[in-house]
Amino acid sequence: MTFTVKQKINVCNGKLLRMSHESESTGTTMDVNVYLPKQYWQCVRGNEALMKPIPTIYYLSGLTCTPQNASEKAMWQFQADKYGFVVVFPDTSPRGDDVPGDPEGSWDFGHGAGFYIDATKEPYSKNYNMYTYVHEELPRVLDQHFADTGKHVDFLENVSITGHSMGGYGALCGFLKQQAHYKSCSAFAPIVNPKNVPWGQKAFNGYLESKAEWDLHDPCELIKQTPREERRHILIHVGDADPFYEEQLKPQSIVEASQDTPWANKIELNIVAGFDHSYYFVSTFVPQHAKFHAEHLGLKEH
Amino acid sequence: MTFTVKQKINVCNGKLLRMSHESESTGTTMDVNVYLPKQYWQCVRGNEALMKPIPTIYYLSGLTCTPQNASEKAMWQFQADKYGFVVVFPDTSPRGDDVPGDPEGSWDFGHGAGFYIDATKEPYSKNYNMYTYVHEELPRVLDQHFADTGKHVDFLENVSITGHSMGGYGALCGFLKQQAHYKSCSAFAPIVNPKNVPWGQKAFNGYLESKAEWDLHDPCELIKQTPREERRHILIHVGDADPFYEEQLKPQSIVEASQDTPWANKIELNIVAGFDHSYYFVSTFVPQHAKFHAEHLGLKEH
Repeated sequence: MTFTVKQKINVCNGKLLRMSHESESTGTTMDVNVYLPKQYWQCVRGNEALMKPIPTIYYLSGLTCTPQNASEKAMWQFQADKYGFVVVFPDTSPRGDDVPGDPEGSWDFGHGAGFYIDATKEPYSKNYNMYTYVHEELPRVLDQHFADTGKHVDFLENVSITGHSMGGYGALCGFLKQQAHYKSCSAFAPIVNPKNVPWGQKAFNGYLESKAEWDLHDPCELIKQTPREERRHILIHVGDADPFYEEQLKPQSIVEASQDTPWANKIELNIVAGFDHSYYFVSTFVPQHAKFHAEHLGLKEH
Repeated sequence: MTFTVKQKINVCNGKLLRMSHESESTGTTMDVNVYLPKQYWQCVRGNEALMKPIPTIYYLSGLTCTPQNASEKAMWQFQADKYGFVVVFPDTSPRGDDVPGDPEGSWDFGHGAGFYIDATKEPYSKNYNMYTYVHEELPRVLDQHFADTGKHVDFLENVSITGHSMGGYGALCGFLKQQAHYKSCSAFAPIVNPKNVPWGQKAFNGYLESKAEWDLHDPCELIKQTPREERRHILIHVGDADPFYEEQLKPQSIVEASQDTPWANKIELNIVAGFDHSYYFVSTFVPQHAKFHAEHLGLKEH
C-alpha cells in the first residue's frame, strides 16, 4: 500500500511527486506521478483554511507513454495551480521482465499499451488489470497514503477523468461505466469505438477471452446503456490533421451512438483544424479541458 | 540559403516550423525550429495591419539538446501568442558523421555541446562556428527566407536572446559582445563563468587554441569590458536545488563581476527555492522571462 517517493520536483507553484508502489491488481511495481498544486502546500503549511478537500483529475496517457510524457509536455501544472486541483498521471500498463508483452514486440500491445481494461485471456489476465488498477485501486491507495498528512486531497469523490488517445478511450470507459464516480470526462483524440478499429481490435483480441466481451469495453456501446446523471458532460478535442483520425479514432462515432440516448447533445466534440496527435495538440487544449473540469468540480479561478 | 520545412505543427494559435538548411558557418545541415505566433498568421492572411514587424526571441538550448527539447517542454508558444513574438530554437552544435565529436564520447563536448563559440583549434575549427552561426548567419538567412512572404518578422533588429544552461551562457556571451544587437537578455540556470568551472574548461580546452582566448568567451570577463546601452538589462533564474549550482553555475559570480561596471544593479538574479535544472524549472519561469523580453521589445499583452 505504501508509496515510495522517488523524486519531488518543483514545478509552477507546486510539486510533482514521482512515486511507485506495489499494486495488488497488476502484481507489479507501478509508477505514478502526482502533481500537488500550490493550494495543497498552503494547506500543509496551515496557511489556508480548506473549505473542502482539493479535487483530483486523473489523466490517462496514450500508447507507449509513461507517467513522464504528460507530466513534461501537457502543462497541466499551470492549470492545477490556477483552479486548485491535483493531477494524477498513472502508467499505461504493468511492466517488468515477468510481465508478458506482445510476442511480436509491437508498440501497440502489451507493455505501454494496457488499454485500461481487465484482461480475461491468458497469459495477460494475471497482470493486465488496468481497469481495476486505475479506477479502483489507485484512488483508494492514494487516499490512504495521503490521509497520513491530513485529508487535504479528495482522490475518491470529487474527481474527474481525462486522457489522450488510448487514454482518452480509458477515460471514456471509466466514466461511462462508473459515471456516478467521475464528475466529468474529457478526452484528447480518443479511440472511441475500439471494436471497429485496428488498435482496439488488436487489444481486445489479445486481452479478452471472447468476442462477446467486446461491447462491455466499447464507449460507443456503453453510451447506449449508461444513464446520465444531471450535470454530467463529455468534452472531446480531435485534430483534423491527426494521422489516426480516419483509421483509429473516428470521433463522430460516439456522437452518432449517443443519438436517442440521454447523452444526445451532452458530448461536445471539437474537430480542430490543422492539429495532429502530438503533445503540441494536447498542451494547446489543456487550458480548455481544465476549465471544463474545474466547472464540474465546483472550482473557481484563483 | 534555402530552408527545407520538414514539418509544420499546429500548436496554440500559431505554427511551429521544423526546418533545416545548409549552413556556411558550420559546413553542415543545421536543424532549427521556428514558432510563428498567431499574429504572424493574421498578417499573412491580411487580417491585421502591421504597425511594425513581429520581433524575435532566440532561445539557446543546453547540453545534449536539439531544437525539440525546448519546443516540446518550455511552453514559449503560449507566451509568443500572448505578446506577439517569434521564437527561434537553434540546434546546439553541428552534427553528422563528418563532424568530429568528443574522442571520449562524453555528452558535454562535441555533438550537442557546441558551446555557441567559434572554435579556433583543429579539428573543431572547421565546423564548430556556433557563435557566427547563431548570432549572424541564422538571423540573416531567416530574414532572407521569410522576406519572400512579406516582411512580417524582424529577425535582425528588434530581437532578444535567452537560453538554458550552456544556452544561457551562449545568450549572455552574444548579448554582451553584440549588445547593440539584442534588446534584452535572460538566462535559465546559465553557466556564467565558464573559465572557472569544469564544463567551461573542457569546452575551452577543446575548442580554443590558446588560454589567452578564454577571457573573450567568459561573461564574467566580458561584462567588465562591455559598455551598457540604456534600457539593457539581464534577467536570470537559477534553482537552489539545481545539482549543478555550486560546481558549474555559480550564478553569483556574474553579479560580483558586474560591480564597478555600468552593469551594476542591472542584472536581476533570482535564486528560486527548491527548483532543479530540468524543463520543469524552465517552463515555470518562461512566463516571467517572456514578460521581461516583451517589455524590452515594446510589446503589450494581446
